[in-house]
Amino acid sequence: MTIDLTAASITEAVQRTFEGTEDGRAKELFVRLVQHLHDFTREVRLTGEEWFKAMDFLERAGKTCTPTRQEFVLLSDILGLSVLVDLIHHPGGGSVTDSTLLGPFYVEGRPTAENGSDISGEVAGTPLFFNGRVLDPDGTPVAGAKVDTWHSDGEGFYDVQMQDKLHGQLAMRALLTTDDEGRFWYRSVAPRYYPVPTDGPCGEILSAANRSPMRPEHLHFWLHAEGFEPLITMLVRSDDPYVERDAVFGVRRSLVVDFVQHDAGETAPDGTPMDESFQTAERTFVLAHQER
Amino acid sequence: MTIDLTAASITEAVQRTFEGTEDGRAKELFVRLVQHLHDFTREVRLTGEEWFKAMDFLERAGKTCTPTRQEFVLLSDILGLSVLVDLIHHPGGGSVTDSTLLGPFYVEGRPTAENGSDISGEVAGTPLFFNGRVLDPDGTPVAGAKVDTWHSDGEGFYDVQMQDKLHGQLAMRALLTTDDEGRFWYRSVAPRYYPVPTDGPCGEILSAANRSPMRPEHLHFWLHAEGFEPLITMLVRSDDPYVERDAVFGVRRSLVVDFVQHDAGETAPDGTPMDESFQTAERTFVLAHQER
Repeated sequence: MTIDLTAASITEAVQRTFEGTEDGRAKELFVRLVQHLHDFTREVRLTGEEWFKAMDFLERAGKTCTPTRQEFVLLSDILGLSVLVDLIHHPGGGSVTDSTLLGPFYVEGRPTAENGSDISGEVAGTPLFFNGRVLDPDGTPVAGAKVDTWHSDGEGFYDVQMQDKLHGQLAMRALLTTDDEGRFWYRSVAPRYYPVPTDGPCGEILSAANRSPMRPEHLHFWLHAEGFEPLITMLVRSDDPYVERDAVFGVRRSLVVDFVQHDAGETAPDGTPMDESFQTAERTFVLAHQER
Repeated sequence: MTIDLTAASITEAVQRTFEGTEDGRAKELFVRLVQHLHDFTREVRLTGEEWFKAMDFLERAGKTCTPTRQEFVLLSDILGLSVLVDLIHHPGGGSVTDSTLLGPFYVEGRPTAENGSDISGEVAGTPLFFNGRVLDPDGTPVAGAKVDTWHSDGEGFYDVQMQDKLHGQLAMRALLTTDDEGRFWYRSVAPRYYPVPTDGPCGEILSAANRSPMRPEHLHFWLHAEGFEPLITMLVRSDDPYVERDAVFGVRRSLVVDFVQHDAGETAPDGTPMDESFQTAERTFVLAHQER
């Protein structure tokens, strides 16, 4: 019975039309989504004009999406939803390394690299030497862990954002493997803070709210190891000007690290004598044992 | 400060980033939207996989939209949001005619027609004679009111859905004008119940929920008159099998009317002797005075 509805009774009427949903979880999601969408609409007394603008916004967001650009993920990011989903399931604060959002620039087909390699590809910039270690919660090294790492260049651009310049090559990303001591290390170039894309519908929201689109300087990591929970995380440079106002809410205090500045003439962690200034950073990652 | 966030504290942190919104109403909408989106996400403990599916659904919905197909309006329709927005501002039950949703088939460039015209265009079907009257709340006729009307053919298709067959012509729609008695009348063909489009992402929801996509047989009206509030409404055929389970929740009891069946040999309301069976329907519409 979906007749004689009022602004109060329509919610239950719509929810009843989901009663025949065979997938119990889908049914729960539909019913609760309708509740919150309707509650919001009633609470703000959404007008027809505002509703029309919302429909138009969503259509344009959909049309902005491409295989290398997902405007709805970005919308979720700037509304704090992406991080919230992570925080619900990984509240953190325990003995294992905190997780955070994946971001839109992970690429499945990245190259593998040996420890110690320069993974910067063709990209020029201040050399950065990263040393990582992977342990279990008891402090035992995790050997053979697979470590995806990726980051921006010194102007805040990822390889996938400058494919013309890179002649279609990937850069500043690799899949490494930890040694018997649980260690992995590589050379690359120092990344930079950068704005999330603002030339699509999400840019209108940031602009209307006078919000900064900037993300602080960071390195991405995605760790996999047999018997452990996968860990998607990110290390943020401690002295970055945007560290406390990340546009997508992805910074966790436990993931803030120092990027140490070294002068020309010093020796890099891998023993290379350096004739230019460079940076170093390091971090130990603790993986959670997989739940059986 | 958007650091050290938890699944509980992130909501306020995100809301604070909208503090600089200059448009006060936009600020209210953003802040309340974030509250409800986050409450929903926490309440159902949305998983990363479900979140990813939602992003993918929204992208595909956006890509389904064309100038004659708005998948987000349809999504809003099947979730009861479109009617809710109307019910909030037009609760009905008073002396004026109830409003309901516009639907996706209204066309701005429709032809004008004289009262008594056959507006069916090239479309074959059971003749339908409609007589309408427009009054103010005191019962005084509203002369010179503009009445848009549009409906489907006998198989449930609108002209814009069969432009090839109609050689690009519009049909079963017109703009009429009330006479000094507030009357308007026309001849057309009887419409039919029909399904909302199910070949896009919204079809997946209806299918997952085992929901009917059907709308009951109806005529659309959009009335404008100097000094009165515009009225978007719809008359639904009382003996239609879907009258109590409209897929988009648009039926109001006060808008249900009888479509009377007449045998061949009877005389139509306009005095035409009919050699085939036909239908008649009538309705008085009461407009609200415009608020000053």
